[in-house]
Amino acid sequence: MKIAVIGATGTVGRAIAAELKARHEVFEIGATRGAHRVDLLDLASIKRLFDEIGRVDAIVAAAGHVHFGPLVKMTPEQFRLGLNDKLMGQVNLVLTARDYLNDGGSFTLTSGIVGAAPIREGASAAAVNGAIEGFVRGAAIELPRGLRINVVSPTMLEEARESFGPYFRGFEAASGARVALAYSRSVEGAETGRIYNVH
Amino acid sequence: MKIAVIGATGTVGRAIAAELKARHEVFEIGATRGAHRVDLLDLASIKRLFDEIGRVDAIVAAAGHVHFGPLVKMTPEQFRLGLNDKLMGQVNLVLTARDYLNDGGSFTLTSGIVGAAPIREGASAAAVNGAIEGFVRGAAIELPRGLRINVVSPTMLEEARESFGPYFRGFEAASGARVALAYSRSVEGAETGRIYNVH
Ligand SMILES: NC(=O)c1ccc[n+]([C@@H]2O[C@H](COP(=O)([O-])OP(=O)(O)OC[C@H]3O[C@@H](n4cnc5c(N)ncnc54)[C@H](OP(=O)(O)O)[C@@H]3O)[C@@H](O)[C@H]2O)c1
Ligand SMILES: NC(=O)c1ccc[n+]([C@@H]2O[C@H](COP(=O)([O-])OP(=O)(O)OC[C@H]3O[C@@H](n4cnc5c(N)ncnc54)[C@H](OP(=O)(O)O)[C@@H]3O)[C@@H](O)[C@H]2O)c1
Repeated sequence: MKIAVIGATGTVGRAIAAELKARHEVFEIGATRGAHRVDLLDLASIKRLFDEIGRVDAIVAAAGHVHFGPLVKMTPEQFRLGLNDKLMGQVNLVLTARDYLNDGGSFTLTSGIVGAAPIREGASAAAVNGAIEGFVRGAAIELPRGLRINVVSPTMLEEARESFGPYFRGFEAASGARVALAYSRSVEGAETGRIYNVH
Repeated sequence: MKIAVIGATGTVGRAIAAELKARHEVFEIGATRGAHRVDLLDLASIKRLFDEIGRVDAIVAAAGHVHFGPLVKMTPEQFRLGLNDKLMGQVNLVLTARDYLNDGGSFTLTSGIVGAAPIREGASAAAVNGAIEGFVRGAAIELPRGLRINVVSPTMLEEARESFGPYFRGFEAASGARVALAYSRSVEGAETGRIYNVH
């Protein structure tokens, strides 16, 4: 398969690319680094990317920022950050890149454990992850040409413990390699509308 | 209890107000009609409302629009409509009206069955409802002073069958009176972070 991994220069994306490269032709795509570049917040940039790399069999996204901070101080603007970035980035991708997927191809998006298991300072992240999972369930039954869409909800990665550890005390981390299996299952399996929890 | 019902001039809100009025002092609040008015998209309007009615023991919201339409034609702008309206309206309410709730008071928000059970043309609604449910789970563990927050996810109301029936073929509808019980359970119970499914 030809597989576009967006966010491939990041912690999660690097592990996904490593898993899939063993068997497939993988395009490693970053925002500011990597062999190819895209800004998911810019529809024209998404089109340019796929005009450059051509049609693919799978598109994986592991990119997107959210605001973490105490609920009692959160402003609507801070709350919106993750909607505009992590949610709309992945929605833009699905709405725009769909035509560049071969028949039967798949999208695999990324949410995160905070959608299912609340943590302090995570109310906006929980909303964003819940939205991505709702979107995937909804989109799965409407995609044409046998296209599929799933989402992976990773727990904190071992590789990210240094930055995220204090938010996730008591949570089991998972290695990037283990999280990457869920993406492989989505891409190389046949299901659609699934949330693959790695937690 | 003193209870503010926002959206009380609508199909769902009317049923909620009817259920709660039997035992409580209910402020019936609409956008363009009703004894009191608020625009949840305008923070100043939310503050004005509560400066007018004073502190309350429960705030219920049953208001908010989403875009329904085929995924393959949906633009990011159409997708954003429900984020800006149904989601951010209710988030604005929680972030702004929190200080007007008495200790131990509650928020009860509204999502909808489309978040859990996909329907055609419902991808954006599914995202919005998923976001509201994620937000409620996240916010519940951070609210101070024993404040609580829950969400009701109604199926299609019998009273709304004329407008929504074609979207929900084969779905069981529920009477407004039955849906209103879930709001009563949230307001008059003691749980927090719960999704009350009426479907
Ligand atoms: N790390 C974890 O433990 C963990 C756990 C659960 C969920 N997640 C989720 O997984 C996703 C990726 O997390 P991560 O830790 O791998 O992040 P990361 O290390 O910061 O990597 C982010 C990746 O996304 C790219 N990117 C940033 N903005 C972009 C944009 N506008 N358009 C396209 N690509 C963009 C970056 O490219 P450049 O390198 O060029 O900037 C990079 O490749 C996030 O949404 C996060 O919430 C992460
Ligand atoms: N009806 C159903 O079967 C059903 C099922 C599941 C979920 N829901 C959800 O429940 C919510 C209410 O639905 P509904 O059918 O009752 O809607 P509705 O009949 O159209 O009523 C909407 C209510 O919200 C008020 N409103 C509109 N915009 C507002 C704003 N910006 N700020 C504050 N209030 C505003 C309206 O006031 P005015 O009358 O003054 O305009 C009215 O009271 C929606 O989010 C809907 O998705 C409905």
